[in-house]
Amino acid sequence: MALNLLPLHTLLIFVSIINSALLSSADQDSHPYIWPLPAEFSSGEETLSVDPGVSLIVAGDGGGSPIVRAAFERYMGMIFKHTYGRASSLLARIRFLRMVEYDITSLNIIVHSESEELQLGVDESYTLMVSKRNEQSIVGAATIEASTVYGALRGLETFSQLCAFDYSTKSVQIYKAPWFIQDKPRFAYRGLLIDTSRHFLPVDVIKQIVESMSFAKLNVLHWHIVDEQSFPLETPTYPNLWKGAYSRWERYTVEDASEIVRFAKMRGINVMAEVDVPGHAESWGVGYPDLWPSLSCREPLDVTKNFTFDVISGILADMRKIFPFELFHLGGDEVNTDCWKNTTHIKEWLQGRNFTTKDAYKYFVLRAQQIAISKNWTPVNWEETFSSFGKYLDPRTVVQNWLVSDICQKAVAKGFRCIYSNQGYWYLDHLDVQWDKVYKTEPLNGIKHPSHQKLVIGGEVCMWGETADTSVVLQTIWPRAAAAAERMWSSREAVSKGNITLTALPRLHYFRCLLNNRGVPAAPVDNWYARRPPKGPGSCYAQ
Amino acid sequence: MALNLLPLHTLLIFVSIINSALLSSADQDSHPYIWPLPAEFSSGEETLSVDPGVSLIVAGDGGGSPIVRAAFERYMGMIFKHTYGRASSLLARIRFLRMVEYDITSLNIIVHSESEELQLGVDESYTLMVSKRNEQSIVGAATIEASTVYGALRGLETFSQLCAFDYSTKSVQIYKAPWFIQDKPRFAYRGLLIDTSRHFLPVDVIKQIVESMSFAKLNVLHWHIVDEQSFPLETPTYPNLWKGAYSRWERYTVEDASEIVRFAKMRGINVMAEVDVPGHAESWGVGYPDLWPSLSCREPLDVTKNFTFDVISGILADMRKIFPFELFHLGGDEVNTDCWKNTTHIKEWLQGRNFTTKDAYKYFVLRAQQIAISKNWTPVNWEETFSSFGKYLDPRTVVQNWLVSDICQKAVAKGFRCIYSNQGYWYLDHLDVQWDKVYKTEPLNGIKHPSHQKLVIGGEVCMWGETADTSVVLQTIWPRAAAAAERMWSSREAVSKGNITLTALPRLHYFRCLLNNRGVPAAPVDNWYARRPPKGPGSCYAQ
Repeated sequence: MALNLLPLHTLLIFVSIINSALLSSADQDSHPYIWPLPAEFSSGEETLSVDPGVSLIVAGDGGGSPIVRAAFERYMGMIFKHTYGRASSLLARIRFLRMVEYDITSLNIIVHSESEELQLGVDESYTLMVSKRNEQSIVGAATIEASTVYGALRGLETFSQLCAFDYSTKSVQIYKAPWFIQDKPRFAYRGLLIDTSRHFLPVDVIKQIVESMSFAKLNVLHWHIVDEQSFPLETPTYPNLWKGAYSRWERYTVEDASEIVRFAKMRGINVMAEVDVPGHAESWGVGYPDLWPSLSCREPLDVTKNFTFDVISGILADMRKIFPFELFHLGGDEVNTDCWKNTTHIKEWLQGRNFTTKDAYKYFVLRAQQIAISKNWTPVNWEETFSSFGKYLDPRTVVQNWLVSDICQKAVAKGFRCIYSNQGYWYLDHLDVQWDKVYKTEPLNGIKHPSHQKLVIGGEVCMWGETADTSVVLQTIWPRAAAAAERMWSSREAVSKGNITLTALPRLHYFRCLLNNRGVPAAPVDNWYARRPPKGPGSCYAQ
Repeated sequence: MALNLLPLHTLLIFVSIINSALLSSADQDSHPYIWPLPAEFSSGEETLSVDPGVSLIVAGDGGGSPIVRAAFERYMGMIFKHTYGRASSLLARIRFLRMVEYDITSLNIIVHSESEELQLGVDESYTLMVSKRNEQSIVGAATIEASTVYGALRGLETFSQLCAFDYSTKSVQIYKAPWFIQDKPRFAYRGLLIDTSRHFLPVDVIKQIVESMSFAKLNVLHWHIVDEQSFPLETPTYPNLWKGAYSRWERYTVEDASEIVRFAKMRGINVMAEVDVPGHAESWGVGYPDLWPSLSCREPLDVTKNFTFDVISGILADMRKIFPFELFHLGGDEVNTDCWKNTTHIKEWLQGRNFTTKDAYKYFVLRAQQIAISKNWTPVNWEETFSSFGKYLDPRTVVQNWLVSDICQKAVAKGFRCIYSNQGYWYLDHLDVQWDKVYKTEPLNGIKHPSHQKLVIGGEVCMWGETADTSVVLQTIWPRAAAAAERMWSSREAVSKGNITLTALPRLHYFRCLLNNRGVPAAPVDNWYARRPPKGPGSCYAQ
């Protein structure tokens, strides 16, 4: 089915904008709550019913994308969870000659671009209008318009949050209609790190994480695949590397990794792979002991051998076929060079080049950067590379913060792009950091100049895996990752003013319960310590 | 497709039986581990490959059941998780004219009975044979034979545990073939209690729990729906009752509950509903305050009014349409009668009948039993009813243990049936009870006479919900529920002898990781305290 393209933007000019403070005063009767808060929106006082057989009408060059169709089916499943037999209800509707009249009988999705390219800065904006169909209405009852399929996905998530199952009428309703929403993300990069080296996470669990990210409009899965403890990924060029896996079963095949990338793309999420060098790489040597400085001193990777860089090049060549995202993370953090200093052949090599260990660290990182760049990747490095030898880094480097609070400020002043993920606030393994501290953290703090601000491409919450295995990873991520997600999506003004106990907390409670209803085991919001169980009986909305 | 019925049982007579102690000595190369251990089995030394396009061939009066077909598709999804595109591989096979030869290309499922009736004692036995097809072979490569579809489901679970993805060949293989397994449960009732009153569990989460139960061959979901904190279920006859829900959204419609029953039946799991009276019922009065003794003293339910029993009868009439299982739980535990003693009109009523409060408790429970019986239900009660006035209980009553360790012994001596779930061992909310204590607990301890033993219909692990909400419920259940599941399924001899650190622990580690791989967040086995995260990095198989 097709629909003529309509000038939604011209309509939206007339839309009055209300802010989050107004929304927060809403009581239980005037839902919905939306998380993260859209850039601009207005609502009314009507309640509209949604047809469980709602049809999808697409338009625009990208409207016919399978990504749109699959997302529509996914979201209809979530929206009509309590309306059993969506398909049979379609039949029933035909059978009973539409005896029940619904207000919303179709969802129009207009996507202007046919490109499904998913890269940093892809247009995720959308407009969403929901209003009762009437003779004056020139648009359908619910309409999402977006430049790209990924904008349409964000619009579908918002639409799903407008829909609530009403237990009295047993129908799905949209309160406070008409809705006019014009939305776009504040930052292009809104990441979550997972760590599959400290604990292996099965493919199904990574998919659960990716799916849950899409509910909060996060858009980059930073996959810290390998570390000193284990090397789970198959690398055909150097097939012994995954001998460094914990066991023969705690592994990802190339096909597994590709499946994760595909699954994530269907949800508008990029996967940024990380291969952390030269530290955090002890597990490599299980398959190729030559990569260790010596059998008794195993980290960092042996800087002296071409073999080391051949292996890196081989891994990156293999991974290039799996990960299409333009960013690739080379780590570079916490490099303890004692093994270089204390191993005879490396000590001699350093002396021969008149290198300090710091010079060797720089040499290693820069050589690895060039390998990534030669494979058409933009390198990302942890901040120590910038603080140690920033002026030598390739200017395309994206610096990722974790340690020092003003490192992004310094990096952007030197023209580098930066990702904010300060450990004191956005490391999810810091279990004593509560939601409000996560929420109040502002990536642009101290960065005044607009040209500098633009270089902060976004932020990332990091779920390091030392004590987060399959059994606890999702409840360590949620709900706190949602606090950062709103900070990164919504306008700085909306999330920075007012009393967040009123403007944000009720919506976060609601979002946590939405996650629970979708089968995601998000932990109580009020926990003083992350992932703790509730203290006693009670409602999801008050814990 | 159809297959001639074959005399599998006669073949199995010749099968040599090995015991679990032998299996436990298997190293990583001689998998699989099976949980729970089958009644009788033998294995060999061959490795067989399984075709990702394996076809289902059914036979027998029940072979065509949609329950079998749906289970086959579910299990193929699990078995071939790493073999992407099972459907396209089917095409590929045809296209390449079967250039790859697999050992197992079809799974034959023979179900003798066409009845899909699922009740206590339904035949869950099955035989499973897996052997290389050859000219002498009179059966297909893999064959499950069962009396009922539910036996076939148990056989499919076992078959899925025989299949392992081999990362070298990237194919699914069965080690130690040929396999000859003849299996049946030791107890007819193998339950897990969930509590949706202390915390509401969304339908999707209950489905996750039910699905996970089927992996351990548990077969009864004991749904403790209502308690003093909340009344989440819709009861059309008394539509105000679910006003006692925590919120307008923390509710189950009749359709939700029916969907859970349907979903469970597809997995061979009965749902036993519980409405706990007369204690644990304060939430009822939110909708109907007349049920409270007084506004200031709200529990137990008012014993004096016919209205109280009318409401019980209405609830049970509504629930009878949802829950086809022959057992219905009426609670009866922890009845504190102070409110009866201290409320004027109840005190007068007691005096008028010359009743002690204990008499009134008995009167209430027996009257509720008769309501259940009139609706063709067999009543189940917590043990206090037996200890307080056992000789008056309806002789059909099933007594559920929780408090006193020898209560089943006493109950069966009086001719009652009994369910074992002693709180010191099988209450999963007792977080300090470790897996081995759960495992070693024997429901028949102290019960010598075979006729008495038969009256213990089984056991149940109980996941009380005071501190177990959606965020932690699955990891509080698993892996400890699996320990009880093997105790209840496998032969008493197999699970009671030997050093369980050798005979059971490695298999339990393996089963926990199997749960993780299937997306179930089972906690580390070695936890000294349940649901704790792992202490540090490591393999799933060693934590």
